[in-house]
Amino acid sequence: MGKVITNRDENYSQWYNDIVKKAQLADNSAVRGCMVIKPYGFGIWEKIQAQLDKRFKETGHVNAYFPLFIPKSFLSKEAEHVEGFAKECAVVTHHRLMNDPNGKGVVVDPSAKLEEELIVRPTSETIIWNTYRDWISSYRDLPLLVNQWANVVRWEMRTRLFLRTTEFLWQEGHTAHTTSQEAVEEARRMLDVYAEFAEEFMAMPVIRGVKTANERFAGAVDTYTIEALMQDGKALQSGTSHFLGQNFAKAFDVKFSDENNKQQLVWATSWGVSTRLMGGLIMTHSDDNGLVIPPKLAPMQVVIVPIPKPGEEIDAVANDIMEKLKAKGISVKYDQDKKKRPGFKFAEYEMKGVPVRIGIGKRDLEKGIVEIARRDTFEKNSVAIEDVDSYIEKLLVDIQNNLFERAKAYRDDHITEVDDFDTFKEVLESKGGFISAHWDGTTETELKIRELTKASIRCIPLDNPLEDGKCVLTGNPSTQRVLFAKAY
Amino acid sequence: MGKVITNRDENYSQWYNDIVKKAQLADNSAVRGCMVIKPYGFGIWEKIQAQLDKRFKETGHVNAYFPLFIPKSFLSKEAEHVEGFAKECAVVTHHRLMNDPNGKGVVVDPSAKLEEELIVRPTSETIIWNTYRDWISSYRDLPLLVNQWANVVRWEMRTRLFLRTTEFLWQEGHTAHTTSQEAVEEARRMLDVYAEFAEEFMAMPVIRGVKTANERFAGAVDTYTIEALMQDGKALQSGTSHFLGQNFAKAFDVKFSDENNKQQLVWATSWGVSTRLMGGLIMTHSDDNGLVIPPKLAPMQVVIVPIPKPGEEIDAVANDIMEKLKAKGISVKYDQDKKKRPGFKFAEYEMKGVPVRIGIGKRDLEKGIVEIARRDTFEKNSVAIEDVDSYIEKLLVDIQNNLFERAKAYRDDHITEVDDFDTFKEVLESKGGFISAHWDGTTETELKIRELTKASIRCIPLDNPLEDGKCVLTGNPSTQRVLFAKAY
Repeated sequence: MGKVITNRDENYSQWYNDIVKKAQLADNSAVRGCMVIKPYGFGIWEKIQAQLDKRFKETGHVNAYFPLFIPKSFLSKEAEHVEGFAKECAVVTHHRLMNDPNGKGVVVDPSAKLEEELIVRPTSETIIWNTYRDWISSYRDLPLLVNQWANVVRWEMRTRLFLRTTEFLWQEGHTAHTTSQEAVEEARRMLDVYAEFAEEFMAMPVIRGVKTANERFAGAVDTYTIEALMQDGKALQSGTSHFLGQNFAKAFDVKFSDENNKQQLVWATSWGVSTRLMGGLIMTHSDDNGLVIPPKLAPMQVVIVPIPKPGEEIDAVANDIMEKLKAKGISVKYDQDKKKRPGFKFAEYEMKGVPVRIGIGKRDLEKGIVEIARRDTFEKNSVAIEDVDSYIEKLLVDIQNNLFERAKAYRDDHITEVDDFDTFKEVLESKGGFISAHWDGTTETELKIRELTKASIRCIPLDNPLEDGKCVLTGNPSTQRVLFAKAY
Repeated sequence: MGKVITNRDENYSQWYNDIVKKAQLADNSAVRGCMVIKPYGFGIWEKIQAQLDKRFKETGHVNAYFPLFIPKSFLSKEAEHVEGFAKECAVVTHHRLMNDPNGKGVVVDPSAKLEEELIVRPTSETIIWNTYRDWISSYRDLPLLVNQWANVVRWEMRTRLFLRTTEFLWQEGHTAHTTSQEAVEEARRMLDVYAEFAEEFMAMPVIRGVKTANERFAGAVDTYTIEALMQDGKALQSGTSHFLGQNFAKAFDVKFSDENNKQQLVWATSWGVSTRLMGGLIMTHSDDNGLVIPPKLAPMQVVIVPIPKPGEEIDAVANDIMEKLKAKGISVKYDQDKKKRPGFKFAEYEMKGVPVRIGIGKRDLEKGIVEIARRDTFEKNSVAIEDVDSYIEKLLVDIQNNLFERAKAYRDDHITEVDDFDTFKEVLESKGGFISAHWDGTTETELKIRELTKASIRCIPLDNPLEDGKCVLTGNPSTQRVLFAKAY
């Protein structure tokens, strides 16, 4: 197995596609813009799901399931929502096929036209708030803290595996509250859940912030976001949490009677992360040898390779190590394939990003040692057989931390404070990353900067210090810096 | 909370709907035939999923995800499959909406018509086998043991919550093998996984059998099935596993080179269970007081109700019991709501099918006891506080077993051997259940019997003894009995 992927330096975008395919994460499908998530990629997604689901439940949420289809008229009920979502979407117009009268396969039966077209959900606020009308009547029914794991469809013109696909998998939380304050707290709490998950499990440092009016979710009062930085200096919006005010309650007439028996409109949030996280994972850690996965999300944390091939003695040691690792909750595979040579296997598991590799050779066995290699730094060490399990237990923690620190150092090094527009453009082109600059607060300026540089305002960081300054483009007064970047 | 559901005797179908709604399992939605699965119902479904997923993985399967949409032409590639599935389905014809030129909401943009219509998957054999062509080239790539959890859509004319809905949730396994024998073994193995799950977890006895040609899955060589019996004497097909032969490999040109480097067509299976199982669960155990859930699938296994209301002393005992139960892995809720009276709570938890209820009253506390009631038999016992956790641990096992034995006794009592057509009709009308009768093996007779009685052949049991006899309708010779029943 020789060098099979493009170098990052050469063509970052091609490198990304090569990793997705060669590491067996996903593939394009016969349907334009829709992907097939392959077992190895899905194994990582299952780990992401399990962790997030656990955290949602710990914060009081329950799962439910709402219909895939949304009546067309629902999308028009919330004025801004329709602008954002009732555009590029999959429209179901008929409910039957029939044999082609000309004998060629099947055709749409014109008599089976739907009275009202159905939209394949691009997001579920409308159908869910239409349902909440029946679920909520009193303050005793609130808060309602519901999440759903689902597929959604947005008819994207340009698609990229995981990052932007026509169909993608996600979770969408939809909560209902008695007060504005409680809803804002919920939206912030879930942003924190996302941020902690991204940092602790994905080892992907993120900046928590709020979106500008222009970048807000269609129908939201405020959109909170976590923004990560990819290795090519572009930002990735990795999760969003929206305070929806009473917009959907108004649109779908959802009221509750309060403790004084007065009718009040319900306050709402929604929040979601998607298979896009897989793209973030890849572009935060991987290298020119392939995928790198943080141990906490690796479907296979350790692989044992016999050198040069399996045999009674090596098998015995491998089985012993496997047993001990499994007892510690560490997932491990012993590759007994006799048809592939060790070098080929090494490259294959590097490509797949398996965090730790144990090589067991006959000569080493005589000395009572095995060779342990870590994927993140390629460092190798000889370890006494009886110490392997405790060594690896610590090593996995070390790799997880190292990946985070490495990504954080890169990210921190790529936040540049800039105070004039020439430097802004220069830094963006030469170094990339986030540019921290003053902005006059108008959508006009924001769009102008985007037009001139392709950089958008990723967020106004939540922990932003106030500071007097002048807008980097217009020179108008500003009270705080915001983060600009080119983005996926 | 008075009597809120219809009695089974009165109107079984209405009773079923009442349970689904009053136990908060599911609701109809704004989209015809599509349901909303409510948090409590989804909690049961999550337990079903977790158990099945574990068993699939233990038998060597991995999860993946394939597109929601299927190009129309794919459905026509397998001759029988198209007859079965390319009929009532949701057809996507456009990918964009636009503002209504007349200013009324949004309308389909006629310029965004798809070149080829997309079908929302009714099942995924076609898109998956089109993908497998790229995944399989050598015998080393086989067997391929893949499952996906997904939503599917079949445009049903008459729908009923869980039992038959336009959109439903399911899992579909799709495997590829080098030999016919291995594929048949796989189909049988997964049937066994379903049967064991149904009996051990759902406490729902099932008969394993094979379908007649007429009842076969469209595109299968053989369809294996598990058939359960509901309390009203109607059968429920609860899971199917198909041996697909080389039909889909032929249709999608999927070949492998064998050990002698010869090109061979791949052998296939597919198998699935769906949210329909929820209907089976309800109709196997529930009663006129509401839902009854086997402890292994109950989202809440024990509820503690303070009598008449919470207070320092009762809270202390409740918390102590909760801690001990949780340590044993038993899920428990302490209902501290002061606004509802104990009798109301009792009825509510009976409706929801919580297996065990602990009542803690002040007078009992003086004696050091609490009252424990089981949902399946309504039996109540006073138990010493220090024994509660071990008592409940045993009780949950007992309830699980009792539910299975009770359902099995009913099912066994409703398999009637019949040798003439008058008795056939009479038993079907008066007693219902399965009728074990001889059949001449022709589709013609099968359909005639169905037309005359509404009973179909549910299956030819796998463990059927051979026995000479005469067809119950035609008198033609037969070698074995088959099971007839009216079915959902």
